[in-house]
Order: sequence, then C-alpha cells, then structure tokens
Amino acid sequence: MADDALFDFLHMEIVSHVTKSDAGLLQDGDEAMSKLEQIGYSTGYRFIERLTKDLSRFKDELEVMKAICKDFWTAVFKKQVDNLRTNHQGVYVLQDNKFRFLASISNSRQYLELAPKYLVFTCGLLRGALASLGLTCIVTAEVTTMPACKFQVHLQRA
Amino acid sequence: MADDALFDFLHMEIVSHVTKSDAGLLQDGDEAMSKLEQIGYSTGYRFIERLTKDLSRFKDELEVMKAICKDFWTAVFKKQVDNLRTNHQGVYVLQDNKFRFLASISNSRQYLELAPKYLVFTCGLLRGALASLGLTCIVTAEVTTMPACKFQVHLQRA
Repeated sequence: MADDALFDFLHMEIVSHVTKSDAGLLQDGDEAMSKLEQIGYSTGYRFIERLTKDLSRFKDELEVMKAICKDFWTAVFKKQVDNLRTNHQGVYVLQDNKFRFLASISNSRQYLELAPKYLVFTCGLLRGALASLGLTCIVTAEVTTMPACKFQVHLQRA
Repeated sequence: MADDALFDFLHMEIVSHVTKSDAGLLQDGDEAMSKLEQIGYSTGYRFIERLTKDLSRFKDELEVMKAICKDFWTAVFKKQVDNLRTNHQGVYVLQDNKFRFLASISNSRQYLELAPKYLVFTCGLLRGALASLGLTCIVTAEVTTMPACKFQVHLQRA
C-alpha cells in the first residue's frame, strides 16, 4: 500500500543523508553505520514498548524472539520473518526471504556491495527492541542474494 | 494504531540526530533545519508520486491543494487538514488543529520554542510533494498554541 512507502522513502533518505557528508562525499563508513544503528536502536526501543503495552509478559527468551519475528516484523515490514533458527545457546538467526528495504534495489547479486547500509538501521531496530524487552545482544546482518537476508542475534548473558 | 507510531518515533529520532552534532552539542540552527527540510523534500517528492500514480491529472492549482489536504495528509498523518484558506493569489494556508508531531509534546504554549524543529521536516514534505506535482513554492510553518499549527504555502509563479 502507498502508506507503507512513506516509511521506505524516509528510511532511504536517512541512509542517504547519514552516509553523505555536507560536501557530498561519502563519510567514514564506520561512523555513518554507527549513526544509522543508533537511530534504529532508539526507534526500536520506543516502538516495541508501544507495540507490547497490552500484551502479557513473555515467559522466556524464545517467546520474545517469536514475538519479534511475528508481531514486531509484521508491524514494521508488513510480513513475518520467514525462518527463525537457534543453537539454543543464545544465537538466533532470523531469515527474511524478501526483505523490504532490499526488495526495491535488486533481486540478484548485483549491487551487493550497497546492501550493508540498508541493513544497519534494522540491526539497530532489532537490538533496541530486544534491549527494551530486557535482552542485551549484538545484531549483525548478512546477505548473499538480494532481497533475502539474515539477521544474526547474539544474546549477551549477564 | 501502533504501526503509525513507528513513523512518529523515526521522525523524532531524525530530528534529534540532525539537531545534535557528534559532540552532543546543538548544531548551527539554520544548517540543521535545512537538512531536515531536505530530507522532508525528497521523501515528499517520492511519496506523492506513489500516492497519485493511479489518479487522473489534476485540473488546476486548487485541485492539487485539495488533494494535498485530503489524500496526502491522510496518508501521512492519518487525518485531513482541518482548514484550507487561500487569497486566490498563490498563498494557501493549511491549518491542522491537532498536528501529529506536536500532539505528543504539549497542548499549551509550554515548550513552544521547541516546535519549529518538529515542523520543518513537514514543510519540506509539503514542498517536495508540490514540486513533484509541478508547483514550485516556499513553505513556512507557524504555531501559536500546540498542537495546532498552520503551514503557509507561497506558490512561485513562473
């Protein structure tokens, strides 16, 4: 639907704004990536609070991850995560076969080098949402063929 | 609905990101405002293309403005503009009595000095949407009591 496109376009503009310096040159990659991740983190942290405010408390870590794959992903990307895998030791892999921010870029390996900057906001979004639900983690993303991608969540045990 | 909150939170983060420098200090006001306006412009330019792609061509300037107040505002802010006025000489005033980006900040004159940075993205959004529909303009915003605000559109004739 057209309304959803607003979020997509806004996301694209942020990526483009953050990764370009005032002089129109590409910024230091790490710094720009870190900013995008932070914007995602704060957005995710607040958004999951709103989303889960009428739900009962989650029983365990796996339930939290399932809610992220289902409710959170649907609210943000209008589809569920296609596959969730875990090693039962704090590593979860969320696979989205048609990730929305990549779907309009390519459906092959072409432009693969551009993919990371369109994933890092979502890594932050995930990390923020999980932090808000009490799980500290590191999130990384991986793409082999667009528009599919995998987000790997490493939970940090206290 | 919770889904709409995502756009609100993302907007808040962008405002906060752009108006703060790396050192955590407030950036030069004009520069930050101009960046926010540009992000809004590009977003609005693209979004209106998507929104109007199945509509027939607009007859005149007034029809464009009506579509902005009704379809565009509803798609972005989930409500219509409450009042549209014009002097029939290229100046249009769009009044929103409960502007979404201000509604969560205050419902009085308190914090009035913070309002401009939450309006400038929308000024750009409007300017971009109108540019995409062939109307060059300058957009300014005015608030007297939050969360009501007025956007003034000055069309630039060729």
